[in-house]
Amino acid sequence: MKRIGMLTSGGDCQALNAAMRGVVKTLYNSGTEVEIFGFQNGYKGLINSDFRMLTNRDFSGILTKGGTILGSSRMPFKEIDIPDEKGRNKVEEMKHTYHKLNLDCMIILGGNGTHKTANRLREEGLNIITLPKTIDNDLWGTDMTFGFQSAVDIATEAIDCIHTTADSHGRVFIVEVMGHKAGWLTLNAGMASGADIILIPEIPYKIDKVIKAIKRREAGGSRFTILAVAEGAISEEDSKLSKKDFKKKMEQYPFPSVSYEVADAIQKKTGLEVRVTVPGHMQRGGAPCPYDRVFASRLGAEAGKLILKDEYGFMVGYKNREVVKVPLKDVAGKLKTVDPEATIVKEAKMLGISFGDE
Amino acid sequence: MKRIGMLTSGGDCQALNAAMRGVVKTLYNSGTEVEIFGFQNGYKGLINSDFRMLTNRDFSGILTKGGTILGSSRMPFKEIDIPDEKGRNKVEEMKHTYHKLNLDCMIILGGNGTHKTANRLREEGLNIITLPKTIDNDLWGTDMTFGFQSAVDIATEAIDCIHTTADSHGRVFIVEVMGHKAGWLTLNAGMASGADIILIPEIPYKIDKVIKAIKRREAGGSRFTILAVAEGAISEEDSKLSKKDFKKKMEQYPFPSVSYEVADAIQKKTGLEVRVTVPGHMQRGGAPCPYDRVFASRLGAEAGKLILKDEYGFMVGYKNREVVKVPLKDVAGKLKTVDPEATIVKEAKMLGISFGDE
Amino acid sequence: MKRIGMLTSGGDCQALNAAMRGVVKTLYNSGTEVEIFGFQNGYKGLINSDFRMLTNRDFSGILTKGGTILGSSRMPFKEIDIPDEKGRNKVEEMKHTYHKLNLDCMIILGGNGTHKTANRLREEGLNIITLPKTIDNDLWGTDMTFGFQSAVDIATEAIDCIHTTADSHGRVFIVEVMGHKAGWLTLNAGMASGADIILIPEIPYKIDKVIKAIKRREAGGSRFTILAVAEGAISEEDSKLSKKDFKKKMEQYPFPSVSYEVADAIQKKTGLEVRVTVPGHMQRGGAPCPYDRVFASRLGAEAGKLILKDEYGFMVGYKNREVVKVPLKDVAGKLKTVDPEATIVKEAKMLGISFGDE
Amino acid sequence: MKRIGMLTSGGDCQALNAAMRGVVKTLYNSGTEVEIFGFQNGYKGLINSDFRMLTNRDFSGILTKGGTILGSSRMPFKEIDIPDEKGRNKVEEMKHTYHKLNLDCMIILGGNGTHKTANRLREEGLNIITLPKTIDNDLWGTDMTFGFQSAVDIATEAIDCIHTTADSHGRVFIVEVMGHKAGWLTLNAGMASGADIILIPEIPYKIDKVIKAIKRREAGGSRFTILAVAEGAISEEDSKLSKKDFKKKMEQYPFPSVSYEVADAIQKKTGLEVRVTVPGHMQRGGAPCPYDRVFASRLGAEAGKLILKDEYGFMVGYKNREVVKVPLKDVAGKLKTVDPEATIVKEAKMLGISFGDE
Repeated sequence: MKRIGMLTSGGDCQALNAAMRGVVKTLYNSGTEVEIFGFQNGYKGLINSDFRMLTNRDFSGILTKGGTILGSSRMPFKEIDIPDEKGRNKVEEMKHTYHKLNLDCMIILGGNGTHKTANRLREEGLNIITLPKTIDNDLWGTDMTFGFQSAVDIATEAIDCIHTTADSHGRVFIVEVMGHKAGWLTLNAGMASGADIILIPEIPYKIDKVIKAIKRREAGGSRFTILAVAEGAISEEDSKLSKKDFKKKMEQYPFPSVSYEVADAIQKKTGLEVRVTVPGHMQRGGAPCPYDRVFASRLGAEAGKLILKDEYGFMVGYKNREVVKVPLKDVAGKLKTVDPEATIVKEAKMLGISFGDE
Repeated sequence: MKRIGMLTSGGDCQALNAAMRGVVKTLYNSGTEVEIFGFQNGYKGLINSDFRMLTNRDFSGILTKGGTILGSSRMPFKEIDIPDEKGRNKVEEMKHTYHKLNLDCMIILGGNGTHKTANRLREEGLNIITLPKTIDNDLWGTDMTFGFQSAVDIATEAIDCIHTTADSHGRVFIVEVMGHKAGWLTLNAGMASGADIILIPEIPYKIDKVIKAIKRREAGGSRFTILAVAEGAISEEDSKLSKKDFKKKMEQYPFPSVSYEVADAIQKKTGLEVRVTVPGHMQRGGAPCPYDRVFASRLGAEAGKLILKDEYGFMVGYKNREVVKVPLKDVAGKLKTVDPEATIVKEAKMLGISFGDE
Repeated sequence: MKRIGMLTSGGDCQALNAAMRGVVKTLYNSGTEVEIFGFQNGYKGLINSDFRMLTNRDFSGILTKGGTILGSSRMPFKEIDIPDEKGRNKVEEMKHTYHKLNLDCMIILGGNGTHKTANRLREEGLNIITLPKTIDNDLWGTDMTFGFQSAVDIATEAIDCIHTTADSHGRVFIVEVMGHKAGWLTLNAGMASGADIILIPEIPYKIDKVIKAIKRREAGGSRFTILAVAEGAISEEDSKLSKKDFKKKMEQYPFPSVSYEVADAIQKKTGLEVRVTVPGHMQRGGAPCPYDRVFASRLGAEAGKLILKDEYGFMVGYKNREVVKVPLKDVAGKLKTVDPEATIVKEAKMLGISFGDE
Repeated sequence: MKRIGMLTSGGDCQALNAAMRGVVKTLYNSGTEVEIFGFQNGYKGLINSDFRMLTNRDFSGILTKGGTILGSSRMPFKEIDIPDEKGRNKVEEMKHTYHKLNLDCMIILGGNGTHKTANRLREEGLNIITLPKTIDNDLWGTDMTFGFQSAVDIATEAIDCIHTTADSHGRVFIVEVMGHKAGWLTLNAGMASGADIILIPEIPYKIDKVIKAIKRREAGGSRFTILAVAEGAISEEDSKLSKKDFKKKMEQYPFPSVSYEVADAIQKKTGLEVRVTVPGHMQRGGAPCPYDRVFASRLGAEAGKLILKDEYGFMVGYKNREVVKVPLKDVAGKLKTVDPEATIVKEAKMLGISFGDE
């Protein structure tokens, strides 16, 4: 008999349900008796011992469903040692719930912040297995995270829609793609949709280079230019500011987001009409794409296998097309970002895409 | 032999190409010899005699293509009598091009503004046939415009995506839907996606009623509330302002759009977290949906038939499931908006949807 | 207090859940106390008193879900007076269940066969309201049925996919579209996807005219021809056979369906390679399109209103863009098929589409 | 100056245009002067010197277009040494065209058969670069082929649609997925859509094991079972036949395809109603998915780079998430099929999926 806790934490994404279904189906099919404790709304559920018992039936038909049947919430790692509103120590409460329910392990699905807390719980002696969930694909230790390809599909579709309008009206269009620290999503959606300029956090842009790329298209007879801009895109100038100075600048920032800043600069320097579209949270929602469903199911199955073998302290990741286990302590606190010298960036440049850097 | 001019004007939308293909296929299949002059970028092309000759081949394979092969541009009706940058009278230039090229008629695809200008050209003696294109479905004289259903599909998909995230996180989400004066798009996308609250220009909202509807959902055990808000949604308070006072208020308006104003009010009065998504121009783009392809093709075919019969001065519209011709003079300058007492609004209310008015 | 039975019968289609949700939400929102008896698997559930009590919660989140939460089954009308496997009279058993449970009315969702049985139950004194569900759009008394537009979308997408392959390889492709007696689905999907030839039951085809249309395309320089063929398409020759002779012919028929017969004839007479695709049951499945969700919700709401007013014996239909009630006795046993002289058929011909009849 | 020939051969698939665009954009952006000879309809165009000159403009806007702008045709490798209808030696004619036009190299996009011929041309002294195109993902030397993920998406959507109907009606449904020799497509689409049973060529099935899996689902309370069956699925019995005996059996085969054979066996042995759906050529068509667009663009870019470096005799493939060059001589004639002991197969079994083998 195994008593297994499960929670989903952080910004939600596609295929969370598929991954959990994978874990649970594997356990049930193994013939081992299992009890599944589904904690509600992320770590909050573990802190407050807020859970419901789940059976095989709860996981039926959810392979294709977006969101998470457990609910989620954000809890920044840096707040983990700050007592909660009732004055309780959060980590102690989580340990308390775990031990009180006599759990064999916790399955935790989440992104970077979630992994830091998960590793902390591991250090505190809990048996933890994690699954790499994020549309940002920025988790260290895995080639891929689930949610990513689904978000690429949605962001690509958004840019595809804009393409026809851009072509009809002959304007400059900016589509703002999610991603504060990592440009994977913007890079892939931009390449998939034929964006002309791609701005990502890892490659600070010079606005003059951006404008040069627009002019070059005009000179080549193009009626329009499309920019895929990551939420976290940053100008070379700003990237050189100290953290403090950048924060100060942001406080007086007149734009809702960086896309509007880029738009404003282009308009002022070229006189061209620029439009901004922000698909926003759409990118986290809806049914997972087939790629993510297979991928999340595979990771879930291997997580189930680890539980059956009592191997804990790992994130189940993906390396060179095989599912692997990665020590949690190696994952926590690291970020996987786009190397400006990566082959895919060079290939994008070979295709004529400008990153605003040269 | 017929010499036919064609242009697309105003904000682009889906199925413009399908409609033009319908006209041209009908003419070619009729056996009549035709010459098609495709004017570039809306009325500008007609003013500047900027056109290219089109053949049957140009219309092959475009049934499913978004945008317009002719390009489009906006030219507000009120500017039509203001001389252009070269000091020329726009209307005279258009007449001049028409007569110089010895055209038999002009096919003009557009929305409200476009129709006013088209009617003006009719008054000036040109042979005009128009086709009702707009995602807003606000053209008088026709039950339906092409582009509308495609835009409903995109806006619905956007809200569908938001639904899973709203459910996971338990927040209030606002999706801003296009439509400055007419609420058709918001109403239909909202009903299609199960939005809980729908705010449209025709039914001024009271913020207290909006909040009451959110509270009622909370009381019923719902984790989240979704609002579909039209760009042109207006509070009851603002709707009573004089045009001048409203303009003055808008000048000091701190929000990018009404959705952010609604979000701000909800946040302040309830403490709930509110997120805004703005699909924006996506709603005009991408491939037309099957409904619009059939519909636009039918209208195009009937426009072709009118040309063959030399019947001019009409918009080709749709009434009670039949394609009809509507005198242009009746169409121009009128708007078809949502009647707050319409059956569909009552049905939406029966389903439990709040319009923020009661 | 109202006690309401509900069942879905016949081949399933999209938006059944949306329609039922519409009825139930309207009843709950009205403040009237209701008890909902959901009978399982169509009339079988009513015969066997096989039901489960449903609450508002059962209808939450199902607006976008395909299929039917009640299950369905086919029960041909002509078998309704044949005793069931247990020797019981089916009609009497249904009446018995109805009275035993002290129901105020039955809500029945179905197509043609379903409506015949529903009307019979009405004649037997039960309070019946029906909702017009079928991808075939062949119910008399309503301009539209839900499921239809969703099926058009799927069939159109199928032909769209085939289009690119046809273009690459330069062949003749046949896509078989659902519809044994009515050609609405084939006609609309064919027009939406730019099919060159459309064969429907209502317009018997002559194979020589079909081949003539293919040759005409070849002569015009086209590499390929696409045919949308209804399951019930019939050659002029066969349409003249007596029912008995046609049945005899069918018994010796070497083809899985009419599409293969058409393919075989084209191949033999032209030497061209012909490929057949049969999307089949895909056309009934998947999430309802936004149009159907709005439409089914509206019909459901009006059905709820009829119940609240105790008005029974009606199908809730749609006429000239308004939801209407149609006496069940007028609906039962009639079919709404495509008039070969209908405007839409003429328009399709104007666009150059061949129906194989001339 | 480079003179580059280009052709697409074999069954078409998604992202052929994206790949060609990648090659050409890279060449143009490099500043090298290039002339592109686009041969029509596969090797036939090279044999008959049937080509058109292509410019940068021809490749604009085709990133998202299905099919191939060059057309394709099948030419089995074993027929390559058989003189054509005019009595000419095909290989000699291709060499003749190549040398006559003074080409620097040929870019050839295709699958297995295409690669055998491409390698033959390399052996004959032509400069060849190939790109791995096939929905079957069965090319040796590359982890992935373009077209594959797009086909997975379409096949998955087909099974998704069937799912709702299966659930409503409680039947056994078979969806036949493309793939004569390799089961990659069926395996991935089956896992993505939650198919219960997956039959692929590499794992011969025993019909009794298939039925056992269906019974197990019934016993577990499931109303329906869905099988994803590859075109090339084979029973254990048949897999043991000699090639000759199997061919003889097939000649008397009463079924259109293996799915119908499986359906027949299940029906006869269980009495359950079984329905077959065959999406067929749909799986090759339509717009490429975002994954394939990025992937094909990357391969195209690297092919362009090889040309610029005058490195020939390679297929551009994908290994461990990096684009690599693979000697053509190693690729030709080999097949990459699913290893029955592969991790992904084991994971599928852990999830409860039956392959009919145990």
